[in-house]
Amino acid sequence: MRIILVGYGVVGKSVTTVLARKYAEKVKDYGFNPKVVAIADIDGAVINQRGFSPEKLETIRQRGYPISADPEFGRPRMSALEVIETVEAEVVVEVTPVNIKNAEPALSHITTAFKTGKHVVTTNKGPLALAMPALTELAAYNNVYFRFSGTVGGGTPILEFAKRCLAGDRILAIRGILNGTTNYILTEMSQNHVTFQEALTNAQKLGYAEAEPSMDIDGFDAACKVVILANWIMNKKITLKDVERTGVRDVSLQALEEAAKRGSTIKLIGSIDGDKPTVKPTEIAKTNPLCVSGVLNAVTFFTEYAGEQTVIGKGAGGMETASAVLRDLLDIRHKLATKPT
Amino acid sequence: MRIILVGYGVVGKSVTTVLARKYAEKVKDYGFNPKVVAIADIDGAVINQRGFSPEKLETIRQRGYPISADPEFGRPRMSALEVIETVEAEVVVEVTPVNIKNAEPALSHITTAFKTGKHVVTTNKGPLALAMPALTELAAYNNVYFRFSGTVGGGTPILEFAKRCLAGDRILAIRGILNGTTNYILTEMSQNHVTFQEALTNAQKLGYAEAEPSMDIDGFDAACKVVILANWIMNKKITLKDVERTGVRDVSLQALEEAAKRGSTIKLIGSIDGDKPTVKPTEIAKTNPLCVSGVLNAVTFFTEYAGEQTVIGKGAGGMETASAVLRDLLDIRHKLATKPT
Repeated sequence: MRIILVGYGVVGKSVTTVLARKYAEKVKDYGFNPKVVAIADIDGAVINQRGFSPEKLETIRQRGYPISADPEFGRPRMSALEVIETVEAEVVVEVTPVNIKNAEPALSHITTAFKTGKHVVTTNKGPLALAMPALTELAAYNNVYFRFSGTVGGGTPILEFAKRCLAGDRILAIRGILNGTTNYILTEMSQNHVTFQEALTNAQKLGYAEAEPSMDIDGFDAACKVVILANWIMNKKITLKDVERTGVRDVSLQALEEAAKRGSTIKLIGSIDGDKPTVKPTEIAKTNPLCVSGVLNAVTFFTEYAGEQTVIGKGAGGMETASAVLRDLLDIRHKLATKPT
Repeated sequence: MRIILVGYGVVGKSVTTVLARKYAEKVKDYGFNPKVVAIADIDGAVINQRGFSPEKLETIRQRGYPISADPEFGRPRMSALEVIETVEAEVVVEVTPVNIKNAEPALSHITTAFKTGKHVVTTNKGPLALAMPALTELAAYNNVYFRFSGTVGGGTPILEFAKRCLAGDRILAIRGILNGTTNYILTEMSQNHVTFQEALTNAQKLGYAEAEPSMDIDGFDAACKVVILANWIMNKKITLKDVERTGVRDVSLQALEEAAKRGSTIKLIGSIDGDKPTVKPTEIAKTNPLCVSGVLNAVTFFTEYAGEQTVIGKGAGGMETASAVLRDLLDIRHKLATKPT
C-alpha cells in the first residue's frame, strides 16, 4: 500500500514514526505492507516512488524543516496538490492544520485525491465539519474509501466503537465530552477554584490550549465532532452551521460551586438526540460515567437493547492520533482484501 | 442462516424476542436472514425445519414451559444433543446456565456442534473458563466460527472493542470491574455504610445476587471473564485454575472508609498484566474512569500508542445479552460473506 503523507506537523511526524515501527510487525499480522512514497508540506515535498525506508523516514524527521531540502528526494516548492495528482499511490493521509473558515487547503487535497482514485485517511476536522455530506458522496462516486477516525477522540476509537461494536443494536442518542482543553479548564475551575481566565492561562502554559483559544473554548472543536458523529453514526446530513453552540467563557465559579453542592459539575457536552444537535455547558452528576476529569474525552451511546455505553480515553496527542491513522489504513487494507469483485 | 437455540431461560427468550423484532430490519441492513429452526430446553424441544415465524416464536414464549408441549412442533424428551446432531442448521446458540464445575451440559453442546460443522454463539462462561484453549482449537480444526461476546460485559461490546477497535495498536494490560453484583455490594457498603451482609441481602432482594451467591462474591464470575479476556485478547492459554482469586467477603466497612479518606474506594478488580492473572479487591482513586458505581461494569485497556481506554456499560440483563448474541450472529454472517474461497 503506497501512501502520500500530506502535512508534516506533530501528527504527520508521528504517522511516519508509527508506520516505521509497525512495518515488520504489521506485514506479519495482517499482510499489510505500507510504504510512504511521498511527504508534502507547505514548502515542498520529498518523493521516492519505491517507498522510503524506516531509516530514511527517521532521517527526514530528524533533519526537520524544510523537508524538501533533502539532497536525494527533495522537491522544493512542489505543491501538495501536484504531489497528489502526479505521484502513484493508493492512499493519501491528510494531516494538515484545521481550518473551519473554508477548510483549505485540506478540502482541495481530499477532493483531488478522490478524483485521482486515491483513498483518503484524514485527522482533519475542517473539511468534515463544513462539507461532510458532500465529501462522503464524492468518495462513493469515485469508488474510494474515506476514513477519519482520528478526528473524534484522537486515538480513542469512538467512531469504530459506534459503527462496528454496536452494529447489532440501534443508537438512539449520543452525548459526550468531546474537547480535552475545555474539560481541563472546567476541571481546574471546579477542583482548584480558579477563575476561567486563570485556568485558560494555565492550559496555555501546559500546551493544552492555543494562543488563540477560540476553536476550543467557544465550542467549535466539539461542534465539529458533533457534525462527524451525527453524519457517520446517526446518518444525519448536517454541517457545522446546523449545530447550536455555546462555549465555556461564561461558566462561572459560582455556578460550578452550586452544582457541586448537588453532587454535580458542569461539562461542555455535545449532544445528538432530538432534531437540533447542540454543544453547551451542561450540569451532570459526578457519578455519571461521562463525568471524566482533566483532558480526557468521553462519549455515551444510548442504545435500544444494550443500554448506555461509554467510551473514555485521551482525545488528542501526536502518537495517539497517529494510531488512529494506522487503524484506518488497516481498515482500508482489510476492506480492499475482502471486497467482492 | 438457520439457528438452533439451546437453553430457554431469560437470555434464550430474549434472543427469540430480539431476532423476531430484527427479522425485517436486518434483512434490509445486512442481507442477514436468521431463522430459528429449533429450540431445545431441559425437558424437550420444538423443531420446525422451515423456521419459526416471529408470531410462532412469540406464541411459544407466552405459553412457557415445557416448550415441547407444542401440539404442532413439540418433541417431548428429545435431548439438546440429539437436536444439535440431527437438525440441519448453520449456527447453534448456546445459552444454558453456567456451571464451572465441569461446564456441562454446555461443553457437550458446543463440542457436538463443532463436530457436526455448526458455528457456535454462546453467552455461557463455563466452557470457556474451563477449556477455552481447547475449544478455540477445536473450532479452528472443524473450520467453524466460535463467538462469545455476551460472556464479558453482557451487552457491552468489550471483547469487540479490544479485538477490532484496537487492531492497529497493542494492548499491554487489562484491568476491569467485571462483575455487577459485587460492584453493587461494594457501592452500597461505601455509599450507604451498610455491612457486607446487609448489602448482599439487599442485592438478593433486588435480584442482583443469587440465593447461592458464591459465583459472584467469591470472584468466580470475574475470574471466568479474566480467562476469556486473557485468551481472546492477550493470547494467553489459561483456564480458571490459573487465576489468583480473592472475593469480596472480607472487605470491611472500615477499609472502605479509610480508602474514602484518601479519595479512593475499593473495587473487585480483574487484572491481566504480568504473568499471573488476578481477581481481588483493590483500592482505586474515585477519579479513575474505571471507578463506576452500582451494577455497572468497566474495563480499561492499556495500549502502546493510544494510552488508556475505558469502556463502561451494563454487564448483564436478558435483552442486553441477547443483543450480544445478535452481534455475534451478524459477525458470523459477515465473515461467511467475505470469506476467501
